[in-house]
Amino acid sequence: MTTEQRATNITWHEGEVSREERYQKLGQTGMVLWFTGLSGSGKSTIACAVESALVNMGKHCYRLDGDNVRHGLNKNLGFSAEDRAENIRRIGEVSKLFADAGIITLTSFISPYIADRDHARELCEKDGLTFIEVYVDISLEAAEKRDPKGLYKKARAGEIKGFTGIDDPYEEPKNAEIHLISHETSLDDEVRLIVEYLVGKNLLSA
Amino acid sequence: MTTEQRATNITWHEGEVSREERYQKLGQTGMVLWFTGLSGSGKSTIACAVESALVNMGKHCYRLDGDNVRHGLNKNLGFSAEDRAENIRRIGEVSKLFADAGIITLTSFISPYIADRDHARELCEKDGLTFIEVYVDISLEAAEKRDPKGLYKKARAGEIKGFTGIDDPYEEPKNAEIHLISHETSLDDEVRLIVEYLVGKNLLSA
Repeated sequence: MTTEQRATNITWHEGEVSREERYQKLGQTGMVLWFTGLSGSGKSTIACAVESALVNMGKHCYRLDGDNVRHGLNKNLGFSAEDRAENIRRIGEVSKLFADAGIITLTSFISPYIADRDHARELCEKDGLTFIEVYVDISLEAAEKRDPKGLYKKARAGEIKGFTGIDDPYEEPKNAEIHLISHETSLDDEVRLIVEYLVGKNLLSA
Repeated sequence: MTTEQRATNITWHEGEVSREERYQKLGQTGMVLWFTGLSGSGKSTIACAVESALVNMGKHCYRLDGDNVRHGLNKNLGFSAEDRAENIRRIGEVSKLFADAGIITLTSFISPYIADRDHARELCEKDGLTFIEVYVDISLEAAEKRDPKGLYKKARAGEIKGFTGIDDPYEEPKNAEIHLISHETSLDDEVRLIVEYLVGKNLLSA
């Protein structure tokens, strides 16, 4: 007989815990909600609000954005064409891992190139994971007028090189699952539209 | 009045969902269980069994290993000293994101260098996240005798260069939270020891 304190009823099965088991235990399906749009379009604001709404519905979410990616995983990347592609590639790979883990993963990056976004989609879809592109559509004029971080002003002054919309292209999505015209509707309605899309596709259950 | 089907009761709050909110909703604390040890030590087998035991206890886990990292996020890395460090750096950053998301994250990589493991620990701890190093200790002789993938044989034959234990060092952890002597105890007991450690530290609640 032992006098040690022991955790009781520890059972395990051989082999890996499956994706399906994770989804069942979490009561949801992992997926990627990939927000794309110009700087100042409102991507992050909308992604934040959608995350909050889903959490209020009992869903488990995680948001990847510049704050937790550019200063961490991708801090050794700059803004050359090669580094931008690698930036989005890594975000795609990490999103795929989160979706595989069962988490509703919201990414909020300009991600200006079709090829890079399509690569992220392919990574997920070829592995049976759901990828939903959310295009937050805003005219350059409107985005530049808003300029919440003063970045367009710096780009126009030549202080930032290769800024999307100014001296680097933004390639509009052709087949985004969700197309929001930024600031044409209220944030409330944008959140509702995205949540209704997920409910309509029966994506919020396991 | 609208005839569209609508999701009802969509509410959200402004600002980001906090880590504490995620932990509360999941009913657990995110953390990193970092398994380290020679090839053939049994790291992955133990990590798999611990994951299964925790899932049976209602916990939400995700395992990062060679299968889902080397062929995805880190597929553009080789085995130079620089690439090995970058390999572990990225795994550390991704583990941190998973722990921040509230997931019990199990990593299973040889991770032979103290500096690289300590860097992963620092990333987590300086951000208030729990990092638990699990050293799966096996003698080179025993690991080489097991050689489940035939890798030591190839390394001895010179077909693999820079193989940990043969022509590249394994730096033993000095302060691992959990030190298992591989194959001295049963897998059942190894799982129990790790789970009891987590229970004892009160780490399995939110």
